[in-house]
Amino acid sequence: MGEKQVKIVLDLMGSDNFPIPELEGVRSALKEEKDLFVYLVGKREIYEKYRDFFKNDQIEFVEAEEHITMNESPIAAIRKKKKSSIRIGLSLIKKGKAHGFVSAGNTGAIMALSKLLLGIVEGVDRPALATAVPSIKGSTIILDVGANVECKPIHLEQFAIMGSIYSEIIFGISNPRVGLLNIGEEEIKGNDLMKDVHKALSVSSLNFVGNVEGKDVYTGDVDVVVCDGFTGNVALKISEGVISALMYLLKKEINSHFTTKIGALLIRKAFKNLKKDIDYSEYGGAPLLGIKYPVIICHGRSNDNAIKNGLKFCKLLYEREIPMKIENKIKEFMNKIESVKELS
Amino acid sequence: MGEKQVKIVLDLMGSDNFPIPELEGVRSALKEEKDLFVYLVGKREIYEKYRDFFKNDQIEFVEAEEHITMNESPIAAIRKKKKSSIRIGLSLIKKGKAHGFVSAGNTGAIMALSKLLLGIVEGVDRPALATAVPSIKGSTIILDVGANVECKPIHLEQFAIMGSIYSEIIFGISNPRVGLLNIGEEEIKGNDLMKDVHKALSVSSLNFVGNVEGKDVYTGDVDVVVCDGFTGNVALKISEGVISALMYLLKKEINSHFTTKIGALLIRKAFKNLKKDIDYSEYGGAPLLGIKYPVIICHGRSNDNAIKNGLKFCKLLYEREIPMKIENKIKEFMNKIESVKELS
Repeated sequence: MGEKQVKIVLDLMGSDNFPIPELEGVRSALKEEKDLFVYLVGKREIYEKYRDFFKNDQIEFVEAEEHITMNESPIAAIRKKKKSSIRIGLSLIKKGKAHGFVSAGNTGAIMALSKLLLGIVEGVDRPALATAVPSIKGSTIILDVGANVECKPIHLEQFAIMGSIYSEIIFGISNPRVGLLNIGEEEIKGNDLMKDVHKALSVSSLNFVGNVEGKDVYTGDVDVVVCDGFTGNVALKISEGVISALMYLLKKEINSHFTTKIGALLIRKAFKNLKKDIDYSEYGGAPLLGIKYPVIICHGRSNDNAIKNGLKFCKLLYEREIPMKIENKIKEFMNKIESVKELS
Repeated sequence: MGEKQVKIVLDLMGSDNFPIPELEGVRSALKEEKDLFVYLVGKREIYEKYRDFFKNDQIEFVEAEEHITMNESPIAAIRKKKKSSIRIGLSLIKKGKAHGFVSAGNTGAIMALSKLLLGIVEGVDRPALATAVPSIKGSTIILDVGANVECKPIHLEQFAIMGSIYSEIIFGISNPRVGLLNIGEEEIKGNDLMKDVHKALSVSSLNFVGNVEGKDVYTGDVDVVVCDGFTGNVALKISEGVISALMYLLKKEINSHFTTKIGALLIRKAFKNLKKDIDYSEYGGAPLLGIKYPVIICHGRSNDNAIKNGLKFCKLLYEREIPMKIENKIKEFMNKIESVKELS
């Protein structure tokens, strides 16, 4: 089996409740993926405490003496902590020992170290964090959702291309519809950044459907939603907030009006299935598109299911050769945009 | 009754389905507010068609020959259409004939013409559109939600002050908690704009609780959420989208699993009450804070209930003297911020 194994590195000190979600997630992933091998990177004390867990020939523990926490400034942390689990983990890929990286840790640090150690595919200036949200008709990809808070038009154009390739390869959507997240459908809407990107995408060979509004993200009428990382991150977290509040209000309503428990029992299954539909953990984290190897960033609040899906998803990105395909296609796209710009 | 009447101008050509929501909304508002008088501004053909409606001594029809549509560029439209219902309507206030203005029309045109004809209160550089969203514990105010797509730090500082005053006077919250909508709680998070605003608000006399994330908007742990108009508009429309999608998915779930209709019947009331809780039309539109007179912008999709609440809300803002109170308080706040800046 050795040659065929896909080797993924997992940061053991990523999630808010590490290392339990990570360890349980690996256990589940290995059950489902027989050709998966996982390098687990973390402090020795984790290895000592869960020694039995590591007695498995699909697992190897790798020591990292330092831990970059969620609240640390990425720039300071990567300078100061040369032996962090993120850096040691990514180094395994750089050395050719592994194929992809998964962490539920500090997004900024993962982003910066991925660029530094693994490199960006040619033609991309900024990697983007892409996430899939459930829509009425399936899934919609949003990018960037937090890796780049300040963007120039060229970055958003590249996000559109990467999102389009990703949607095609992972979700099997041919010629995905790409929309620009804006505050109105008309071309003249939005800030200067949006107006410039709108112009560039209009003349690109992408299937650009124009501006979309926040309300369109969940209808399934668009496959890829492009935005800067600040807006995307707010959009995603607002969605989480709305869902939580709505569930709370609905449960309160139901409890205050039913004298029997019948109603609540009847809809329990509906709620459970719905929760699964909208549960970020089912989506296995967000890939950092534009890095030369698959890198998946999971939610800080990840549970074992999220980690399991993150590992499976990272393996899939490797098997489908996403980074290479982005590299192959982006040059072609960018050349077209450039030549149109020169003509105009 | 004459002297005591509150006179509000309503744009008859604002909403997507005008003039029916407007006419029905006025009818309901007049039933509930005996001291309300409404100037209805629109094309003569509306008056001709609904002649009987105008036979009411709490109503007066005012002719406007032109209509600014939703998709028009505000700048071009206000230059070209000097006889629009928005301009004619606002002129009535300028002439001292009325006390406030309500429209479900083009936000940009209402904003620009309000500034031009009614003026901005001293100390405010940009009026802001404020909206109330339901939270688990009550209501949260978000501003700006679409009037200003490009903002400087000083604008967001002023939004914070106006939102704080508004929350205190309308929702009766003393010393409202003000949060800055950002992509992380730490001071170092976000783009340059956010970092600058964070610094300024930290030294202000407002009850500034720091950065809040999208997920915090609906928890009720903050009373006023400050952001630029682009982010705020996306946040609001994403919320609408999530609610619609969730309702759809939940109904689908319920229908696919219940063989009897019992469950659906039982929760119908819960859904109905919930819908009311989250229905924008219950909130009566968004005030344009910082204009010298009360101006309310209703959602383009407003129904009669939304228009009714918009009228009642505009009357309330007049009675509580919101514009004057903003003017009185903002100078004091801004002087403090300025003096701290000079010291640092």
